[in-house]
Amino acid sequence: MLFRSAMAGHKGIIANPNCSTIIAIIPLWPIHQVSRIRRLIASTYQAASGAGAAAMVELLESTRAHLDKREYKNTVLPHPYAFNLFSHNSKVDAVNGYNEEEIKMVNETRKIFGDPEMRISATCVRVPVLRAHSEALTIECERPITPSEVRQILAKAPGVKIVDDPEKNYYPMPKDASGQGDVLVGRIRQDMSDPSGKSIVLFVAGDQLLKGAALNAVQIAEVMIEKGYI
Amino acid sequence: MLFRSAMAGHKGIIANPNCSTIIAIIPLWPIHQVSRIRRLIASTYQAASGAGAAAMVELLESTRAHLDKREYKNTVLPHPYAFNLFSHNSKVDAVNGYNEEEIKMVNETRKIFGDPEMRISATCVRVPVLRAHSEALTIECERPITPSEVRQILAKAPGVKIVDDPEKNYYPMPKDASGQGDVLVGRIRQDMSDPSGKSIVLFVAGDQLLKGAALNAVQIAEVMIEKGYI
Repeated sequence: MLFRSAMAGHKGIIANPNCSTIIAIIPLWPIHQVSRIRRLIASTYQAASGAGAAAMVELLESTRAHLDKREYKNTVLPHPYAFNLFSHNSKVDAVNGYNEEEIKMVNETRKIFGDPEMRISATCVRVPVLRAHSEALTIECERPITPSEVRQILAKAPGVKIVDDPEKNYYPMPKDASGQGDVLVGRIRQDMSDPSGKSIVLFVAGDQLLKGAALNAVQIAEVMIEKGYI
Repeated sequence: MLFRSAMAGHKGIIANPNCSTIIAIIPLWPIHQVSRIRRLIASTYQAASGAGAAAMVELLESTRAHLDKREYKNTVLPHPYAFNLFSHNSKVDAVNGYNEEEIKMVNETRKIFGDPEMRISATCVRVPVLRAHSEALTIECERPITPSEVRQILAKAPGVKIVDDPEKNYYPMPKDASGQGDVLVGRIRQDMSDPSGKSIVLFVAGDQLLKGAALNAVQIAEVMIEKGYI
């Protein structure tokens, strides 16, 4: 979705990012403002809804068929979906082995963060969830950063809701993220595999039908109206 | 599960590793023999079966209730499971924020690889899959290594089956891993986020009820009988 405006000094096109990208960058952007993120490793847990309404129907119908011990022939997604998961159903680059969804995460995050050198790798996976994407994120910042610093940053960040309760084992879940405008963020902890103290691990869940698409487009339009661009 | 033997120079106890650990280390061990793995970042996609038969029943019954628009009260797992996912249901360490399943992956991998300095981080997630765990793994080796080297190593590795077809977008899936003794390995690619060329990304799926528990115990016993220990 694109917005065209006539403002001077701007090409007049604002792209709405890919849904996996936006769920990750909403909590990462405010962290990046405090300590620049140099590396991101993401594993996604993507819902059927990202592949459209027909994919959601295929998940529902194939699951019912599985429970009823009936055969089901998938026609929308490339693999059986009931109680199964599979690598994201976008084209895989024959040279580097990454699929298009992963490459979008790399390119769009670099573009939005204005850092073409940011080191990013993603593994995008479709899981049997109807709605809302989740992602496990490992970030390396330019200087040491603690989980409590990250919590402080995110507590004030727009579009973010911290859901991080170790005692109750309550963390972001697609069930809670569905229908919400905010991206849920939790499992905020120091990355044990980086003794420099510069790395943080997070788990996020967001309704990509809202923040990832329609709601974000509306919010872009609102900001542009507010600023008098349209 | 433990095996006690009377062989000299050995304490006589062989532990069968945790299911998330074994699914990861079966393909990683032969790589480690060629180029020592210094860092591992894992995100798991764990099936209901890892939490026992009652959890599998809860997944089936809550899913049917969801499809029939009936209420369902979960009693086995801490969160609603139908078309949902959640952080692994083991106790979370109040200090470091990792849960017990993740700590097991760290400690057991270090122990089995005989490298207490290996840098490891894991995010363990329960997904609505009945059987077979999947994992996205990023490894950093001590020297540059290519995907084709990794494929050559894994082609000869015991207990591993390479499932890596970019053209057909066919990769390891729990559906295919269920009931198999081998761990399926695919998405073998150079980690884009590490310009040193030392890092590789993989995706694995394995039936932890077999290789993660019963089958592995049997195989340990077979090796011990073969070597005359029991």
